[in-house]
Amino acid sequence: MTTMRAPNPDHQAPKGFQYYPPPLEPVEPGPRRTPAEEARTLLANSDVATLATLSEDGTPWASMIMFGTLPDGSPTLMVSTLAEHGRNLERDQRGSISVMSPRRGPDPLQNGRVTLAGRFEKPEGERREAARQACFDAMMYGKVYEKFGDFSVWVLNVERVRWVGGYGVMGSDDAASYATAEIDPTAPNAEHAVEHLNDDHADALLLISQKLGGYPDATAAICTGIDRYGMDLSIDTPRGKAPQRIGFAERCEEADGLRMATVELARRARTA
Amino acid sequence: MTTMRAPNPDHQAPKGFQYYPPPLEPVEPGPRRTPAEEARTLLANSDVATLATLSEDGTPWASMIMFGTLPDGSPTLMVSTLAEHGRNLERDQRGSISVMSPRRGPDPLQNGRVTLAGRFEKPEGERREAARQACFDAMMYGKVYEKFGDFSVWVLNVERVRWVGGYGVMGSDDAASYATAEIDPTAPNAEHAVEHLNDDHADALLLISQKLGGYPDATAAICTGIDRYGMDLSIDTPRGKAPQRIGFAERCEEADGLRMATVELARRARTA
Repeated sequence: MTTMRAPNPDHQAPKGFQYYPPPLEPVEPGPRRTPAEEARTLLANSDVATLATLSEDGTPWASMIMFGTLPDGSPTLMVSTLAEHGRNLERDQRGSISVMSPRRGPDPLQNGRVTLAGRFEKPEGERREAARQACFDAMMYGKVYEKFGDFSVWVLNVERVRWVGGYGVMGSDDAASYATAEIDPTAPNAEHAVEHLNDDHADALLLISQKLGGYPDATAAICTGIDRYGMDLSIDTPRGKAPQRIGFAERCEEADGLRMATVELARRARTA
Repeated sequence: MTTMRAPNPDHQAPKGFQYYPPPLEPVEPGPRRTPAEEARTLLANSDVATLATLSEDGTPWASMIMFGTLPDGSPTLMVSTLAEHGRNLERDQRGSISVMSPRRGPDPLQNGRVTLAGRFEKPEGERREAARQACFDAMMYGKVYEKFGDFSVWVLNVERVRWVGGYGVMGSDDAASYATAEIDPTAPNAEHAVEHLNDDHADALLLISQKLGGYPDATAAICTGIDRYGMDLSIDTPRGKAPQRIGFAERCEEADGLRMATVELARRARTA
C-alpha cells in the first residue's frame, strides 16, 4: 500500500510553485484509512457506479450500473445483454468499476472516488446466492429483472484498488488488502458530524489547528472530512490555506464514536 | 437514430409478464429529444463524468474526471500522467465517457445517463485553445494544473452516442447527429418546473392524463420529467401505474418557455 500526500514530488511543477503553507511546528499528520478501507467503506455506502468493459471494436465502454457488495467486498451486478455492457461482459470478463462519493463542496476533484479492477465471473453455488441477494438489496426491481432471460448476475473479483481522496491524498492496494479491510462503521454519521463541527464548534476547530495541527498562526479552520481515525481540516493562515490531518487518540470502533473522539480532541487542544 | 419504448420486445420476459397498463384510448406518445439531443443537453449541464480507458494489461479502467465541452459537443479533459487514465490515454487513444444526470427519485435506473465513445486526441491550434478554455471553465484550478508538465489537454472525437433515459426509453446516435444536435435551452429550469407542477398543479396533471394521455381512468398523476418537447407523467390507475409522454403544442425555443407550454397543455386538457 502506498499513500501519497501533497506536495507530490512527482508532479512536474513549475519553478517556484507554492503548494500549501507548511506547518510552523513539526507535526506528524494523523493516521487515515488505507486505500482498501476507503474503498470498502465507499462501496458499503453506495449503490451506483460506472462500469468499464471492452466493446466489440476494442474501445473501453463506460456505463452506469447499480451494484451490491458481497461480505468480502466483491461488487455484484445484474445486467442485461440488451445493454452493451452486458454483451461486453459475455465476450470479455476484464473490467473495472468506479464509485464516487456524493458531491460536496465547490470542487469535485476534492471528493473521494475509487476504481476496482479485475475480472468478472458468473458466480455459482452459495456465492451466486449471496450475489443475487446483494443485487436485490441494491436494486428496487432486482427481483423483477431476474425473471428476464437476458439478465445475468456477475461478481467482480477485485485484483487492484485505486483510491483518490482529493489533492495529494491517494493510494493503491491489492486484492488481499481489499478482501480483509474493514468498513468504517462511522461513515454513515460523518456528513452530519462535519456539519455539526462547522456550525457549532468553529472555536474548537481553530484551537485544534493551532495547538495540535502545527499552525499556531491559524485564524480559522473548517472540517472537510471525518472518519474513524481522525479529521481533515482546511486551515486559514496569513500565509494562505493549508490542509491538515488530525488523528484521534484511538480509532472509533462504533458507528456513534465520532462525538466522543472529537470531544477528546478538543479537550487535548485546550490543555496543550 | 433508434429510440425504444417499454415494453421492449427484445427482453426475454417471463410468460404472462405484465409491463404497464396500456392506455384505454389510442394516443400517440408525445415527441421527445433524440439521443443526441439528450447527450448534448446532459453534457452542457454537467462537469463530472467517468472515463473508460485501456490499462497496460488490457483491462478497461473506469475513473472519475472533470470535463468541459466544445461548441460541437466534443468533451475536453485535462489529465495528468501521474493518474492511470492519463498514462492510458498516452498509450491508447480509444475511450469513452459516461455522464449521469443528478440522482433524483427512488430508483437511479430511472435517471438519464449517456455514453460517448470514440478516440481522444491532443488538439492543436484553435481547437486546442478552445479545449483549454473549456477545461478552465469546468475545473476551478484548471489554470494551475496547466502549469504542471504532467498535465495534457485531450478532446474526445465522438463516434458513437448511447443514451438511456430510464426503463424502455433509450437510443443510439452517430457522430454527425451528435455534432449538429441542439442543447435544450429549458434544461436548467426543468427541475424547478417539475417541482412546481407536482406541488401546485396536481389537478392539471390528472386532467392531462385523463384527457390527453389516453388514461380516462387515471386517479392521480405526477410529473417525472420535462423538456422543450413535452413532459413525462407517472399515472396512477386502478389497473396499476403507467408512464406516459405528453407533447407540447410547439417545441420551446427559450429557456423560460416551459411555463407557457404547460399552461397551453392544461388549457387543451380542460377543453378536450
